[in-house]
Amino acid sequence: MSLPPVPDIIRSAYATLVVTDLAEARRFWVDLLGFVVTDEDSSALYLRGYDELTHHNLIIRSGPAAAAGALGYRVRSYDDLARAEAYYAALGCRTERVPAGTVRGLGEVVRAEDPLGFLVEFFDRAEHPERLQQRYDLRRGAEVARLDHFNICVPDVPRAYEYYSGLGFGLSETIEDDQTVYAAWMYRKQTVHDVAFTGGAGPRLHHLGFFAHEPHSVLRICDIIGSLHIEDCIERGPGRHGVSNAFYVYLRDPDGHRLEIYTSDYYTGDPDHPVLRWSVLDPRRRDFWGNAVIPSWYSEASRVLDLDGKVQPVTELKQTAEATVGADGFTAPAE
Amino acid sequence: MSLPPVPDIIRSAYATLVVTDLAEARRFWVDLLGFVVTDEDSSALYLRGYDELTHHNLIIRSGPAAAAGALGYRVRSYDDLARAEAYYAALGCRTERVPAGTVRGLGEVVRAEDPLGFLVEFFDRAEHPERLQQRYDLRRGAEVARLDHFNICVPDVPRAYEYYSGLGFGLSETIEDDQTVYAAWMYRKQTVHDVAFTGGAGPRLHHLGFFAHEPHSVLRICDIIGSLHIEDCIERGPGRHGVSNAFYVYLRDPDGHRLEIYTSDYYTGDPDHPVLRWSVLDPRRRDFWGNAVIPSWYSEASRVLDLDGKVQPVTELKQTAEATVGADGFTAPAE
Amino acid sequence: MSLPPVPDIIRSAYATLVVTDLAEARRFWVDLLGFVVTDEDSSALYLRGYDELTHHNLIIRSGPAAAAGALGYRVRSYDDLARAEAYYAALGCRTERVPAGTVRGLGEVVRAEDPLGFLVEFFDRAEHPERLQQRYDLRRGAEVARLDHFNICVPDVPRAYEYYSGLGFGLSETIEDDQTVYAAWMYRKQTVHDVAFTGGAGPRLHHLGFFAHEPHSVLRICDIIGSLHIEDCIERGPGRHGVSNAFYVYLRDPDGHRLEIYTSDYYTGDPDHPVLRWSVLDPRRRDFWGNAVIPSWYSEASRVLDLDGKVQPVTELKQTAEATVGADGFTAPAE
Amino acid sequence: MSLPPVPDIIRSAYATLVVTDLAEARRFWVDLLGFVVTDEDSSALYLRGYDELTHHNLIIRSGPAAAAGALGYRVRSYDDLARAEAYYAALGCRTERVPAGTVRGLGEVVRAEDPLGFLVEFFDRAEHPERLQQRYDLRRGAEVARLDHFNICVPDVPRAYEYYSGLGFGLSETIEDDQTVYAAWMYRKQTVHDVAFTGGAGPRLHHLGFFAHEPHSVLRICDIIGSLHIEDCIERGPGRHGVSNAFYVYLRDPDGHRLEIYTSDYYTGDPDHPVLRWSVLDPRRRDFWGNAVIPSWYSEASRVLDLDGKVQPVTELKQTAEATVGADGFTAPAE
Repeated sequence: MSLPPVPDIIRSAYATLVVTDLAEARRFWVDLLGFVVTDEDSSALYLRGYDELTHHNLIIRSGPAAAAGALGYRVRSYDDLARAEAYYAALGCRTERVPAGTVRGLGEVVRAEDPLGFLVEFFDRAEHPERLQQRYDLRRGAEVARLDHFNICVPDVPRAYEYYSGLGFGLSETIEDDQTVYAAWMYRKQTVHDVAFTGGAGPRLHHLGFFAHEPHSVLRICDIIGSLHIEDCIERGPGRHGVSNAFYVYLRDPDGHRLEIYTSDYYTGDPDHPVLRWSVLDPRRRDFWGNAVIPSWYSEASRVLDLDGKVQPVTELKQTAEATVGADGFTAPAE
Repeated sequence: MSLPPVPDIIRSAYATLVVTDLAEARRFWVDLLGFVVTDEDSSALYLRGYDELTHHNLIIRSGPAAAAGALGYRVRSYDDLARAEAYYAALGCRTERVPAGTVRGLGEVVRAEDPLGFLVEFFDRAEHPERLQQRYDLRRGAEVARLDHFNICVPDVPRAYEYYSGLGFGLSETIEDDQTVYAAWMYRKQTVHDVAFTGGAGPRLHHLGFFAHEPHSVLRICDIIGSLHIEDCIERGPGRHGVSNAFYVYLRDPDGHRLEIYTSDYYTGDPDHPVLRWSVLDPRRRDFWGNAVIPSWYSEASRVLDLDGKVQPVTELKQTAEATVGADGFTAPAE
Repeated sequence: MSLPPVPDIIRSAYATLVVTDLAEARRFWVDLLGFVVTDEDSSALYLRGYDELTHHNLIIRSGPAAAAGALGYRVRSYDDLARAEAYYAALGCRTERVPAGTVRGLGEVVRAEDPLGFLVEFFDRAEHPERLQQRYDLRRGAEVARLDHFNICVPDVPRAYEYYSGLGFGLSETIEDDQTVYAAWMYRKQTVHDVAFTGGAGPRLHHLGFFAHEPHSVLRICDIIGSLHIEDCIERGPGRHGVSNAFYVYLRDPDGHRLEIYTSDYYTGDPDHPVLRWSVLDPRRRDFWGNAVIPSWYSEASRVLDLDGKVQPVTELKQTAEATVGADGFTAPAE
Repeated sequence: MSLPPVPDIIRSAYATLVVTDLAEARRFWVDLLGFVVTDEDSSALYLRGYDELTHHNLIIRSGPAAAAGALGYRVRSYDDLARAEAYYAALGCRTERVPAGTVRGLGEVVRAEDPLGFLVEFFDRAEHPERLQQRYDLRRGAEVARLDHFNICVPDVPRAYEYYSGLGFGLSETIEDDQTVYAAWMYRKQTVHDVAFTGGAGPRLHHLGFFAHEPHSVLRICDIIGSLHIEDCIERGPGRHGVSNAFYVYLRDPDGHRLEIYTSDYYTGDPDHPVLRWSVLDPRRRDFWGNAVIPSWYSEASRVLDLDGKVQPVTELKQTAEATVGADGFTAPAE
């Protein structure tokens, strides 16, 4: 089948989380983690990192049950919105277009249910808030700079790879063996990834990755969390990833949504950027120091919403799970 | 005048330095700074940073007098080489094309004398050496990751801006006042810059900027230099730049070529990336902490070679020098 | 009973480890960790950190079975050697005095089997090797500065506390509940500790703590270990201790001897320095971020030698083990 | 002359600064630098670092003119107060004893005009405020841990050395040549110094050194200062000291009082701790990277008060100034 041209995607730009207690979410994301509030009202927060020059990296909405809403991708131009509509229509996916300002701070937005079951949003224009990168006097918490990537759980990693490859995403790294690809990292912007796939029941959102400039920021947010005796919100790490070489920690918000503070990265902008393929048997793939992955990190994730705001049903994993194949890096008894 | 299409430039990729004592240069760049040697022979070194996945970021050649040779830009495809030839021909610039392997590790190369008087080289293919990013056991010195940018001295900054703008470079930051642009930073890859212009007698190479991941690398190379009692090679810094927000130090090699170890940076990939304009009167523009710029940093630079290997004549500055206008940030008496 | 005056102990100064393969030990301690070799011969290595101004912090001897030999304490003056002899004699402990140079680099040494079953050595004079603190050009591995402390396993923590208290050690921190002291940290130099007690079968050496100046050193040695794919030698961490507030990682040498790279610390020199008492139920006591302690960290330790070089028998724990009482911080099923 | 026994001094504990605008001083020391306020009233602030376990490291008092008041030393026991009185009386120095609570948070205090012309205070008891070391959630600014040292300007460095040597201070480092000692560092606690002497017109207070745990704290306070566009308060650095090996920055408060944020240090507790002697001609002595010392750093300092609160007259330098002898490390024309 010949598909129409794809929209020219610039980068992963923002995500939407539905939370059950907005005030508690604000305490976590703003007071504790230090996200900048661009805008807010009684039902939603629009947050960004200190380097971000557009309106938001994260929308937190109040809702009846915790879930992940739309994942937002910026496209190059207004015409890419129409391309997105045509492309998803050709894929048999539902789309809708909403007027400028419907998503606060953005121009027109095209929304689609993608073939993997995730809700995605495309926009080409965004308001520019005040530049805060050099306001060191304001920095708090994890000193998040910007959104870096989405990590999504999918039951069929090769299918997710094919879909995103069709959208023009490059492949930076994989976890695999001779039979199976267990995980993959793909990019549009010149970093290791804008989106990554973790094999598991899906569609679910595994985590949102936020970039911070220094390992110090990862250690500091952990120290602050310890100071407040809320250490249960640290799920995994800190540690060094084998994949991506980033220094990281994974946290869980009050609704269980997972985020990663992600530092260090590398340039992937060359046209022939070589793929780094990790063996699923290398214990360093998930933690370069060989520390065991916490079981919940493999099994838990956020349910996602469809275009109508209903929770998407989940398909169990088709492939053999990495957590059982890769014996090290996951020391709990096989499930 | 209508110009032919420009080559699609990916990034600044390598520079060439001519040195008078190759063994001494090797001690500085390899033994002290820790650059990786991809290849070498009796007359040249091919060096790269630990993250670099192509053959070299720096060619150091032995020659009768210290000078800067070609600045190398990677282009997207083979057809871009012909585009480069046609484009520079239309500009009235001399070009030549050399066969694959003439510049070691690269495919065919198109060389040109650009309108600013610099020798530039374009290539689309490069050999991939061993991936060393996660070989922490090998890291030494300044732990340079990759080339980040060229900084060139030009007597007419607006003209340099126009030329690079024509080549499709984006503008990230400037130093200016109502009458004059004193300096500008421009990019193709999604960082603050691939090339920057410092107002001054030109064409001369002001410095090569190499990216390192952590401020620790900047402090450590200074500490090593102190240990060896060769502290004269530290010219300026460490400090935080106002422009670019990078933490930096400037060093001089045994032939006086200047390099910067440059850490931190920010994403510039959005199509409407906003320009940050610094007043020439803001003492923080060159050092965010207000530390004075060393006079030699404004006045000294490397002469550059033409296509025939001859030293290009230098034109004196047309504009009022930043060093005399921006009173702070440069505390020496006006020259 | 009235005891004679105690020797004036300055600090924990060195430890002795017996290893089964000296060449392999050298690869671990010198090539990997970067310890400085002050002296060596076919049967022993004398190692120190980069800040250490005396002959050694660690003696590694070849022997038939892995074990911990003497723990060395520096005393203030020559007369303190006689005080040590008299004091241990009054305690009913065997002692011996060996001439200057018997322990290489030291003056006369008084050796004793202490009441807890450990072999201890006292000395007042040591050779001063070259000062290397500012030789950043030589630093490698974990960039260890000096020995910081001994951590010993004892079946009766209050008894160990009484004994070391009698020797004039101050108490900085404890882990306890209403009935039991599970662990304690005691000092002579003005840091958190020279010696600490971990409740468990003893006498055994739990670990040697070596001071490094920066968290970066902890992260870097882990990265180097990952690079070499020998990540099994990382046992626990990196993490932040609740007790002591230090950032740490625990490694195991090829014979299973445990060491800690320990950074940050605090001043304890005031005469009324207040004790910090941690509840055994606070999951932050062992890791401030609430990460679980690895089971082997509680159960495994090095056997110790007596004055005749024989392995000391071990007494099982008298108290309820912290690992079973402190529910979090140790998530393995109760043993 | 035979002198009575000296008081057993534990450490430099606090300093007193007189400022002309208490509200402005509070903005600098508390809001900007992040010092913890133990106590305050309309005329004074009592500040401490995050690690400090006694009432204060710094008293800031409102007064008609900027000056340095008393330097506070902690002594071991109550009897040391009488020893201090007798000792200074024997030296011909005026003393007075004030009741507990006169200096807020302290027991009885013995005050003396020392032979160098400085006002010193001795105390043996202090209130313990809340322990904040692990309250990372509260840390701000330079994240100062505790007072580290006093640096005083004296016209006769050898005389200052003799006086402090008589008080039992050890010598860690010097700057000297064959004829002259230009500067010296002396300690009671087991660090490089509690007091240091800078040759110059005196008695004057050159600076107060406050310890921070990480180089990051030095960089961060500079970045915050740049953010607020008050970069004039950064006088010198950041840099690495040759002497002491500390990473540092010097700031000036609104009244011109100088402070140092001082990180890293080394253990000096061994009885035979060897002295490190720097040549005045080594440009690394003041900055290990060879960066020039700012002229004001050599020439400016705070005047000090006597027992009656009057400003002490100043004696000009007897020795040749280091700034003119040590050509590098001070590049301004000789004065």
